[in-house]
Amino acid sequence: MNHKFDENLYLTNETGRHLYHDYAEHLPIIDYHCHLNPKEIAEDREFEDLGEMWLSGDHYKWRCMRTFGIEEKYITGDASYHEKYRAFAAILPKLAGNPIYIWCALELKRYFDIDEPIGPENAEAIYARTKALIREKHMTRRWCMAHSHVRLVSTTEDPTDDLRFHRQIAESGCGTRVITAFRPDKAMFIEKPGFAEYVKKLSEVAGMPIASFPELIQALERRLQYFRQTTGTTVSDDGIPFFAWEPFTEEEADAVFQKGFNGTPLTDREENLYRSAFLFHMGRLYHRNSYVMQLHIGTYLDANTTRVARIGQSTGFDCCDDATAVISVGKLLDALTAAEELPKTILYPLDGTKIEAWAILAAGFCDAAGPGLSPSGTRGKVQLGAPWWFNDTAYGIRRQFESCAPLYPLSLSVGMLTDSRSFISYPRHELYRRVLCDYLGELVEKGEYFSGEENLREIIEDICVRNVNEFFGFGIKL
Amino acid sequence: MNHKFDENLYLTNETGRHLYHDYAEHLPIIDYHCHLNPKEIAEDREFEDLGEMWLSGDHYKWRCMRTFGIEEKYITGDASYHEKYRAFAAILPKLAGNPIYIWCALELKRYFDIDEPIGPENAEAIYARTKALIREKHMTRRWCMAHSHVRLVSTTEDPTDDLRFHRQIAESGCGTRVITAFRPDKAMFIEKPGFAEYVKKLSEVAGMPIASFPELIQALERRLQYFRQTTGTTVSDDGIPFFAWEPFTEEEADAVFQKGFNGTPLTDREENLYRSAFLFHMGRLYHRNSYVMQLHIGTYLDANTTRVARIGQSTGFDCCDDATAVISVGKLLDALTAAEELPKTILYPLDGTKIEAWAILAAGFCDAAGPGLSPSGTRGKVQLGAPWWFNDTAYGIRRQFESCAPLYPLSLSVGMLTDSRSFISYPRHELYRRVLCDYLGELVEKGEYFSGEENLREIIEDICVRNVNEFFGFGIKL
Amino acid sequence: MNHKFDENLYLTNETGRHLYHDYAEHLPIIDYHCHLNPKEIAEDREFEDLGEMWLSGDHYKWRCMRTFGIEEKYITGDASYHEKYRAFAAILPKLAGNPIYIWCALELKRYFDIDEPIGPENAEAIYARTKALIREKHMTRRWCMAHSHVRLVSTTEDPTDDLRFHRQIAESGCGTRVITAFRPDKAMFIEKPGFAEYVKKLSEVAGMPIASFPELIQALERRLQYFRQTTGTTVSDDGIPFFAWEPFTEEEADAVFQKGFNGTPLTDREENLYRSAFLFHMGRLYHRNSYVMQLHIGTYLDANTTRVARIGQSTGFDCCDDATAVISVGKLLDALTAAEELPKTILYPLDGTKIEAWAILAAGFCDAAGPGLSPSGTRGKVQLGAPWWFNDTAYGIRRQFESCAPLYPLSLSVGMLTDSRSFISYPRHELYRRVLCDYLGELVEKGEYFSGEENLREIIEDICVRNVNEFFGFGIKL
Repeated sequence: MNHKFDENLYLTNETGRHLYHDYAEHLPIIDYHCHLNPKEIAEDREFEDLGEMWLSGDHYKWRCMRTFGIEEKYITGDASYHEKYRAFAAILPKLAGNPIYIWCALELKRYFDIDEPIGPENAEAIYARTKALIREKHMTRRWCMAHSHVRLVSTTEDPTDDLRFHRQIAESGCGTRVITAFRPDKAMFIEKPGFAEYVKKLSEVAGMPIASFPELIQALERRLQYFRQTTGTTVSDDGIPFFAWEPFTEEEADAVFQKGFNGTPLTDREENLYRSAFLFHMGRLYHRNSYVMQLHIGTYLDANTTRVARIGQSTGFDCCDDATAVISVGKLLDALTAAEELPKTILYPLDGTKIEAWAILAAGFCDAAGPGLSPSGTRGKVQLGAPWWFNDTAYGIRRQFESCAPLYPLSLSVGMLTDSRSFISYPRHELYRRVLCDYLGELVEKGEYFSGEENLREIIEDICVRNVNEFFGFGIKL
Repeated sequence: MNHKFDENLYLTNETGRHLYHDYAEHLPIIDYHCHLNPKEIAEDREFEDLGEMWLSGDHYKWRCMRTFGIEEKYITGDASYHEKYRAFAAILPKLAGNPIYIWCALELKRYFDIDEPIGPENAEAIYARTKALIREKHMTRRWCMAHSHVRLVSTTEDPTDDLRFHRQIAESGCGTRVITAFRPDKAMFIEKPGFAEYVKKLSEVAGMPIASFPELIQALERRLQYFRQTTGTTVSDDGIPFFAWEPFTEEEADAVFQKGFNGTPLTDREENLYRSAFLFHMGRLYHRNSYVMQLHIGTYLDANTTRVARIGQSTGFDCCDDATAVISVGKLLDALTAAEELPKTILYPLDGTKIEAWAILAAGFCDAAGPGLSPSGTRGKVQLGAPWWFNDTAYGIRRQFESCAPLYPLSLSVGMLTDSRSFISYPRHELYRRVLCDYLGELVEKGEYFSGEENLREIIEDICVRNVNEFFGFGIKL
Repeated sequence: MNHKFDENLYLTNETGRHLYHDYAEHLPIIDYHCHLNPKEIAEDREFEDLGEMWLSGDHYKWRCMRTFGIEEKYITGDASYHEKYRAFAAILPKLAGNPIYIWCALELKRYFDIDEPIGPENAEAIYARTKALIREKHMTRRWCMAHSHVRLVSTTEDPTDDLRFHRQIAESGCGTRVITAFRPDKAMFIEKPGFAEYVKKLSEVAGMPIASFPELIQALERRLQYFRQTTGTTVSDDGIPFFAWEPFTEEEADAVFQKGFNGTPLTDREENLYRSAFLFHMGRLYHRNSYVMQLHIGTYLDANTTRVARIGQSTGFDCCDDATAVISVGKLLDALTAAEELPKTILYPLDGTKIEAWAILAAGFCDAAGPGLSPSGTRGKVQLGAPWWFNDTAYGIRRQFESCAPLYPLSLSVGMLTDSRSFISYPRHELYRRVLCDYLGELVEKGEYFSGEENLREIIEDICVRNVNEFFGFGIKL
């Protein structure tokens, strides 16, 4: 029985091993969606220890630790990173089948060249070894990105952000290009407390009054353009919990805006109407400003309200909603198509059990670009995004390949992203590439694909780096 | 690495290879549901070229081409079939994992004995070779059917159709029996423009006035009987988008019919009520006239309304709805059971990710036939249909075997159909049979089935030809 | 081709075979949820024949027989067990891929040491052989449990049950501990006829008046405590069809209770409100009385109303509802968490195609126990239950491992149960353990887990026996 990390991880067939080691393994990384803290990139401090690397901000690990009944002190509490690391290391051998197990293994291997399994008995030894290596190699935030051949990362910021850290990073000559996604969710959550305050803040930052829905959209466009000018970004990001399309007129949308702004409680229909109008108008802005629209659909945020109130948002108490109908997003895409303003779009449904209907939807809205269906078409204009959050696992990735490649050409995919708050989660790209090569190898060995090596190499390079570079117009030299 | 078509395609285990090559490979084909154009069968023209064979009417390929941003001119536009073929051939090597890749490979192999992969570099050479073969062998519509040992096909026609082509075909002594499915969808879409005109046309064709819902049903029964008399068919086909069961009285159903006929807008409840009443009454007609009821459930038709308006219906802009609840169809089956008029029924849910609840539903409505639960029971009275449309892929087929054989005896299945507009799509039966034998072989090799070769042979023959012949009462000598 | 039962059933890799045969195979069984009839355990009669063993009360087999159109006489009718057995044996070779096939094979092997396949040709011989063995070994109900090393079973009883048989069993010195689950469904089904009568009966049994909703809950708590005192149980069981959370006040809940008690028809909202209030209060009772809450979610009971009216409930006409939203149960867990009275909880969603969102939900409500998030945390406080009913198949089990281990640590699972009415269904534990070891072995062989043998052994023992013993506090010496 194997007792250490194996370089043929996930590669169960000969062809797949060949494809991975010869073509995929050494490709650079374009991480077009993550949640890294730009302040940390700007400051570029050395990590304290493996505890900080693994457990600061990683709600995947936090929720996992809670399933073991570990005291909150060692999760998000005031224990030291060393103590937290110890609590976490003790459960690692129990995580058979969980991505955290293999992520940690890959991270140990790639950043510290450690290939033994971690557990309570060697946790301290590994802690000491990694701490020494961090010091020795001066492992900072940027070191990690450079070490993993990361050519670009896109953080995620609110429209009101002044992007000062992004400017600092650019000025500092960082080896990795750092842009940001424009994420206007707070302007969509009209039903939440704080909406009016948010609108006022946005008004200030945008330097214009916001007394109506059209003005809100106009202010957002100003910020969108500021984000573009400042970081060169073309990336947007909308996070959408349950969504039910509701037809709207501009007057209705504005009326609901006024109610929301004044704190008048809204009906479900009004909320849906506002959300529909908001996303429609954001889609138009993205199209006009050459942004890619990224829709993250079906979150069930803050499910455990009591713990969120105590511990905070995005600390491991979000869940997955299974109730948003495909047709609701279909109506949005249809309205944007009718307006001839459908931007390039990536759909990220969170409920991975139902991705097929989303892949089908995406294909139904692809066509040659522009009103006259001109020859200058967009490859993969509307497409399914990488398996996301709870689906970012070998199983979720493999399922998406198997179930959606028959519905939408996989070779057009813009590939993987980390969506991570961690600076050492780049091996998730490696994991994805391994599963991809294993999948393609299996197609070959089953006789399902026989167009040869050169075509496979192209497909792999397209999915791993070229498509994303072209789709977002990053213009990175590869 | 394999560079040509392999006769062991999909057959990953020894037992499966044996089962396929010795038992399944040479069985004839009964294609009990397709969308072939009967006029083409009647006229039986030779194909112009591979472009016509592949790209006339095949919306699977069209939508796939659009994902690559190919100009519409080369998809449904005025380019020649030769040009369209060239545009399509160029993307074929990019379709790893997509059924179009392997369908084309099987078609090239079976109709032209070409086993090399197609791509931009050899597209013209293959074009010329296939064109020569079409001429040499005089490949017509009927030639394709005969070449594939197709014993019966069922096209799909509207109740108002006069079936003149079916009569011509029968008179012409076609080697393949050609019947039709009775598809009354237009009488169900009461909310669509043109409903009143449709009813008037139906009234004329049926030779009776239609001034009420009961008369509508009566007129449909006349046409049902005409279809039976003319082609000997027992096949019906109902296409159902989102469906929510709504209890109804005959009076309510008629009242909604009157509103729809007069063009008065209907509420959601009224639409659902009419749809419920319509399907209930069609079910009774099917039962009384010994038809099999086929319910195709969960389409999201014309999702991209702008493109449909420009390019047309059924050109690749339909999607999949994921919102129809199993219980809605359950209520329909329950009402028909209560009336002791549940016909033999096949359920085809389009959302393949949720088929299990449908397989379970089907089993819950099986029983010995007739009111007294008499001994003359029907095998598989209500059953799940073949993986359909977006699910007609090796993945979809395999999933249905794996996930539904535990819920409903697979050996009772009436097997595969093409659902196709193409005359050379019969290798889809081959694909299905390969996946079936691979699945059965795997059961054997895992120790999950050990009742021996003779039983396996019977199961394979039952699924591939015998069950369908018996279930529909085709009476084909096998 | 294999023609007899194989001891490596389901074990497709070397590591898995080793893990199963060396660690899992001989572990005892704790069957913490089943539907055995306690009267039968108390009386402990010898079985009449294999027909009785297989076909008395087993609605899985009944519904399967109906799919073959077998006359009801041979299913639930007045034919002898011998005749029923013959009818059933004739279809067994047709059940490739169905769990009934392999369950029967395992049962023949484990209880009668028969490893040949059963079919029409040897059905009588096997009948005679098994009948002789039943006599020779005096195979009674308890014999079966002892033979399978069953240390505990939990039946399922209504709160009004006097548990006389459980008391008899305890007094008789049964080798298997027999407790019961507390199942208060009848008090939840306020919309069903007979609710008022049920409340009256409960009032009598509990020895207190029930004139209000709080009194209903109080009476249920008395019975809950009686169940605990009498059998030492900590097991509850709530069966929940479609469920939509509806916020409630105590006054509203009582008002609906009054209407239901008086037979006034309820609106959908009222039904949902009552169900929400009921489950919330039951959760509190479970927490206060240290019971584990088990929620069985998404049944579509009595789908075929006509046949249920004729043949009875739980005879094979139940189906699966696919419409309950995860968020509805999320709101229940959230309300209980807010009240700091969330009990240990096991979620059993019936629609196996959507389990992932449920696994995610479970993890979102885990934490260290109690209001202060004290160190004395519960391992796996809220967790996903064993694949249940229609999911109790090799496919369903494997799917849950593959899809949910990435979302929730599998090693915390309380493992398998039979949920069965049969005394010889314990090989379902064997089947589960085989699939578990095969899955773990595959992780190892793919390089996805490499923490070694000792950790794997612990994980297997935890899942198969230790976790359940600790979670329910059974205190069985293992």
